[in-house]
Amino acid sequence: MDASALQLIILPAGIVAVLFAIYLARDVLSRDTGTKEMEDVAGTIFEGAVAFIRRQALLAVAASVVIGVVITLVETADVADVPSLAGAPIGIRTAVAFLVGAACSMASGIIGMYISVKSNVRTASAARRSLVEAVQVAMRGGAVSGFLVVALSLLGVYGIFSLYGGLSADTVNQAPFLIVGFGFGASFVALFAQLGGGIYTKAADVGSDLVGKVEAGIPEDDPRNAGVIADLVGDNVGDCAGRGADLFESTAAENIGAMILGVGVYAIAVANNWPNPQAWIFFPLVVRAFGLLSTIVAIFFIRGREDENPMNMLNRGYWVTTILSAAALLLVTNVMMQTNGNAPSGLPVWLYFFGAGVVGLLTSVAFVYITQYYTAGTFRPVREIAEASKTGPATNIISGVAVGFETTFVTAITIGIALFASHWLGSQAGIVNADGKDVGGIFGTAVATMGMLMTTAYILAMDTFGPITDNAGGIAEFSRAEAGAREITDRLDAVGNTTKALTKGYAIASASLAAFLLFSAYIDKVNLIETNRGGTPLAAINLADVNVFIAALIGAMLVYFFSSLAIRAVGTTAQAIIVEVRRQFREMPGIMDYTQRPDYARVVDITTRAALREMIAPGVVAVATPIIVGVLLGAQAVAGLLMVGTIAGVLLATVLNNGGGAWDNAKKYIESGHLTDENGVVLGKKTPAHAAAVVGDTVGDPFKDTAGPSLHVLVKLLATITLVLAPLFIR
Amino acid sequence: MDASALQLIILPAGIVAVLFAIYLARDVLSRDTGTKEMEDVAGTIFEGAVAFIRRQALLAVAASVVIGVVITLVETADVADVPSLAGAPIGIRTAVAFLVGAACSMASGIIGMYISVKSNVRTASAARRSLVEAVQVAMRGGAVSGFLVVALSLLGVYGIFSLYGGLSADTVNQAPFLIVGFGFGASFVALFAQLGGGIYTKAADVGSDLVGKVEAGIPEDDPRNAGVIADLVGDNVGDCAGRGADLFESTAAENIGAMILGVGVYAIAVANNWPNPQAWIFFPLVVRAFGLLSTIVAIFFIRGREDENPMNMLNRGYWVTTILSAAALLLVTNVMMQTNGNAPSGLPVWLYFFGAGVVGLLTSVAFVYITQYYTAGTFRPVREIAEASKTGPATNIISGVAVGFETTFVTAITIGIALFASHWLGSQAGIVNADGKDVGGIFGTAVATMGMLMTTAYILAMDTFGPITDNAGGIAEFSRAEAGAREITDRLDAVGNTTKALTKGYAIASASLAAFLLFSAYIDKVNLIETNRGGTPLAAINLADVNVFIAALIGAMLVYFFSSLAIRAVGTTAQAIIVEVRRQFREMPGIMDYTQRPDYARVVDITTRAALREMIAPGVVAVATPIIVGVLLGAQAVAGLLMVGTIAGVLLATVLNNGGGAWDNAKKYIESGHLTDENGVVLGKKTPAHAAAVVGDTVGDPFKDTAGPSLHVLVKLLATITLVLAPLFIR
Repeated sequence: MDASALQLIILPAGIVAVLFAIYLARDVLSRDTGTKEMEDVAGTIFEGAVAFIRRQALLAVAASVVIGVVITLVETADVADVPSLAGAPIGIRTAVAFLVGAACSMASGIIGMYISVKSNVRTASAARRSLVEAVQVAMRGGAVSGFLVVALSLLGVYGIFSLYGGLSADTVNQAPFLIVGFGFGASFVALFAQLGGGIYTKAADVGSDLVGKVEAGIPEDDPRNAGVIADLVGDNVGDCAGRGADLFESTAAENIGAMILGVGVYAIAVANNWPNPQAWIFFPLVVRAFGLLSTIVAIFFIRGREDENPMNMLNRGYWVTTILSAAALLLVTNVMMQTNGNAPSGLPVWLYFFGAGVVGLLTSVAFVYITQYYTAGTFRPVREIAEASKTGPATNIISGVAVGFETTFVTAITIGIALFASHWLGSQAGIVNADGKDVGGIFGTAVATMGMLMTTAYILAMDTFGPITDNAGGIAEFSRAEAGAREITDRLDAVGNTTKALTKGYAIASASLAAFLLFSAYIDKVNLIETNRGGTPLAAINLADVNVFIAALIGAMLVYFFSSLAIRAVGTTAQAIIVEVRRQFREMPGIMDYTQRPDYARVVDITTRAALREMIAPGVVAVATPIIVGVLLGAQAVAGLLMVGTIAGVLLATVLNNGGGAWDNAKKYIESGHLTDENGVVLGKKTPAHAAAVVGDTVGDPFKDTAGPSLHVLVKLLATITLVLAPLFIR
Repeated sequence: MDASALQLIILPAGIVAVLFAIYLARDVLSRDTGTKEMEDVAGTIFEGAVAFIRRQALLAVAASVVIGVVITLVETADVADVPSLAGAPIGIRTAVAFLVGAACSMASGIIGMYISVKSNVRTASAARRSLVEAVQVAMRGGAVSGFLVVALSLLGVYGIFSLYGGLSADTVNQAPFLIVGFGFGASFVALFAQLGGGIYTKAADVGSDLVGKVEAGIPEDDPRNAGVIADLVGDNVGDCAGRGADLFESTAAENIGAMILGVGVYAIAVANNWPNPQAWIFFPLVVRAFGLLSTIVAIFFIRGREDENPMNMLNRGYWVTTILSAAALLLVTNVMMQTNGNAPSGLPVWLYFFGAGVVGLLTSVAFVYITQYYTAGTFRPVREIAEASKTGPATNIISGVAVGFETTFVTAITIGIALFASHWLGSQAGIVNADGKDVGGIFGTAVATMGMLMTTAYILAMDTFGPITDNAGGIAEFSRAEAGAREITDRLDAVGNTTKALTKGYAIASASLAAFLLFSAYIDKVNLIETNRGGTPLAAINLADVNVFIAALIGAMLVYFFSSLAIRAVGTTAQAIIVEVRRQFREMPGIMDYTQRPDYARVVDITTRAALREMIAPGVVAVATPIIVGVLLGAQAVAGLLMVGTIAGVLLATVLNNGGGAWDNAKKYIESGHLTDENGVVLGKKTPAHAAAVVGDTVGDPFKDTAGPSLHVLVKLLATITLVLAPLFIR
């Protein structure tokens, strides 16, 4: 097969994925919406979610326009620095790419969330009849998000790349530098979605629990508590829209970073008359296209028996995606990575990159199982926390922190091995540039990142499964559905907790790999500008340079400071909810005996306003810090901030995500009656041990659902912001 | 005055400081030891502390001998790499320096602890008469530690430096490389002292609280609880011996690192015929000597009125030390830093380095006040945590974590400004080497570190004041002393909590500066070896190199993993105490009605064994990780591990220390009746808010007294271990 023939698959694959998402959406929407009560609740949730998203989108659009103008000015002022593009409106082109990236990210988040809000009531209704049907509805609803996010990322990158001359042989090697704005746009909107949504969801969760369960003594998800609707809305705007934006950004950033690195190989391919030089630049898009097709096939494998663990059904599909992806990788590397002659070892060059891609796929699998080990109740860490709950909340917290810290070990080692192995494989390919410098190694890590992200659509579908089933459970409870339905939604909810945790592990690992790519791309861009200006290219990012060290220190600090602001924002927003629900209990006495309907809309509105207001401080810090450091300390220093900030961010996110997940499941472990005292008596709900575990669970909430996931976005935002604004940092 | 005349002050200053420490010790020991009951308790504490230190010292000696042999082998195998020293037994010399460093560190810890254990009962007794007298006894007892630690560090470095040819003009520039073993020895013993002591003290604290206060319902420090004596012993072996070893190591490491950097300036001085080339190498020792003399004077300024806040008395002495140190710095830079001609600006060269030293002194002052802001009850952070306690333990924990994370901001910015300013000042001096590379900048940061560490003896005296007054309070309670004495020891205890927190802030800031120096020294040493081998010196520590990035990731991870092990060790050891005290309550029924004496010795013994056993895992991880990474990934990569590990360690230690301190004082804030509900009713002891604050305090214990301070030691251990074993990492 010809390499350029394979390139033709990008557009059709993206379109097929979108059509498939539409098919799934129609399938889900055609299903029954349950009882009148269910429809009522679902309608209220829908309204709340739309109200939040609308206001958030307005804010994001306004901010994006401002940033777009800034980019235009920065890049235009610098247009003379890229002589090959002189005369071309580079600033405007980057700003347009930024706006397109922002728009695609926003669109995929909004549409995905729309479908998932529509899926929850249908899942609740299906749960009255059959487990398998409920799994299918929830997973298909989730898959709409998954396919749209990945397809829009692919089509967006491909579209803007084509528009900027990527399809012409003359400019194919310049276009990748013009599309970095797309990645920045995606990160920028992701910050809004994840940070705002994360604050919303956890403030609603903590606030309504404290005012309802703790103060008023009514059960969780009780309809008398107006905060509960905000909590259900939060699942959608935080978990669902937030994670979608997070992974949209990962895939876009990885595509762009890998294409820029592909430019380096392209030059070598041209110089050596390899068959298809441009294939090295198109490669990331083709791999992504095949990942989408593999996932479409896998969706049909999600089936099983009524008495089966739903996790098994989802795992089956995941393995199908992984195996098909590996096969596709074999095909794509074989066809596209053609050189003249073999690697120094005598083996064909493509084989090494196929190996690097498999390393990426295996890394993805590793993270799925690592997260499971640390956050599922069947293994040592969660049981340790549950045991520690016997001596009260303090030991529960200490134990959870110890577990959270511990998870960095296997995370760092796995990422380290993945980087080392893929770099080693790539360097064995023997691709060296005119200066004799190895280019294959870093391209190997790019291929591993592509391999890892081939399964994104599936992972994201599993993730969105989480908030859908969580909402389905809430709707069943809220509408006082029959016990059988409740039992099924509970089982799905437990699985959803696991898939949500898995996705975070996957997202953070892919963020670290993507950031490493973008970092390399940043150096390439700085050196391109320096060369054009007649300056000195960066030989290294020298940690022994005092400015680099200071910037690195600030990068690592930023991660803590940002998290501190995000965690505090949850507290402030929760306080606003508590005050309002207290007021309703006080001024509307009919609520308690069900004669008066609580004012849901008002709580949702207050939460929306507070969450959006509270996200401003961390958002500004995230955007301003790299710019200030870059302007004050220069291009080399800001690279130090980026790298060390990435390392610190990945590890702190791991601590927060896994610690929070483990606390959550330690509580569930106790609730399921697995914990016993020394005499074998079960310590379940309403025991002091359970109360201690509830404290841990509450502490973990803003960690795992606000600060942790927002750090994923921060890490990539640092990378894209420095990449786009690089001209500003060069003296 | 002549520069070489100033050098003559080193030895006398060290000896005067030791004599002054002996004078203070005799003064303290001559004071009365209170009632029979007080003497009994103090005797039991003394026995427990000696038993722990003896066993710990045995372990440390055995481990040191093993490491000594390893060093001999590594360095001897490499002797051909330093031709100027060929034939000299470099391996044995480094190993001897290591053992001397280890011995000095151990000796200063043991003697200081001995005096402080003797001071506590005398402070308790003095508290029956007068506040001022109690402050003086406690502060003089603490000063014994302070002077011994700093004097032994100075004399040890000076002695081994003289022994290895530092006083001869031919070898003065080689000797600094031979004494790096001293720093490693100091760090190695510090790891034992701080980690083992930290586990002991917090396990005893948490364990005896849980089994006494929570389970048996008897008050804190109640004599019926056998764990209480272990808790009092822990204050001495953890806070006192541990911090002494920590700062011993900082001063030694800073001296050695600065002298190695001085070698670079020495070469320039010789080439340019500056008056006193060797003065640049001796400079750090002279500065340290003047710091000791300034502190001796300051001790006499610790006096005040009976109704005065004791913190004011201590602050007065601190300011005297700081001002005298600044004056001494002016003298020393002016006399010793003589060049031919002025800096490019026209100003004399020494003036820039005086400025850098003042930056260091100001950094020290800044950290004293920053820590106070974040951990004292009068400011926003602690009040915020206290407010959050109203809604239960979960919000208390969330708020404390947010505060802990937030403190990294001002820490990183302050360290960043100190590094930037001192580097800038140094580079303005215009000292460039033969290759035209600026050497003054990095020497400026060295001078800032020296300035910062001039006040170490005073800071350490304030720190040791903490465990002495804490113990004095415990003894007063335990021996049921009169209420007036209790009231005075309570006031002193509150001040002691602040001084302990201050010292940690100071220690971590100085650790980060010292580590930066050692890092520069490491690069100098690697390049020396590479040059001698005919290899390529390191042009940079390139973060864009995949191996450096992986090592950096591992360095940041190590910090979390090590902390996880340390925190878990506290839990395991506490469990052993709980089991034993429970057994005593069960099998010795007379304890509860005071007719039977609890078996204190057995609890102390069990705690000792458990703490020393539990420190093995984190200790091995700390020592093995840099060696494994260095051997596998090389000399450049291990530098990445060192730098990023330092950054991550400094920030995590800041989070743990300040978070823990803030939780502690939020509890005290509530206990002092400062918290009120919305109707103005005071929420004090026995309210749910107080119970929530107790949870935070308990969580903070292993953070601020085990993991945090152990990270200080880890950071410097990484630096000294890589510096000594550098030959092993060069391919």
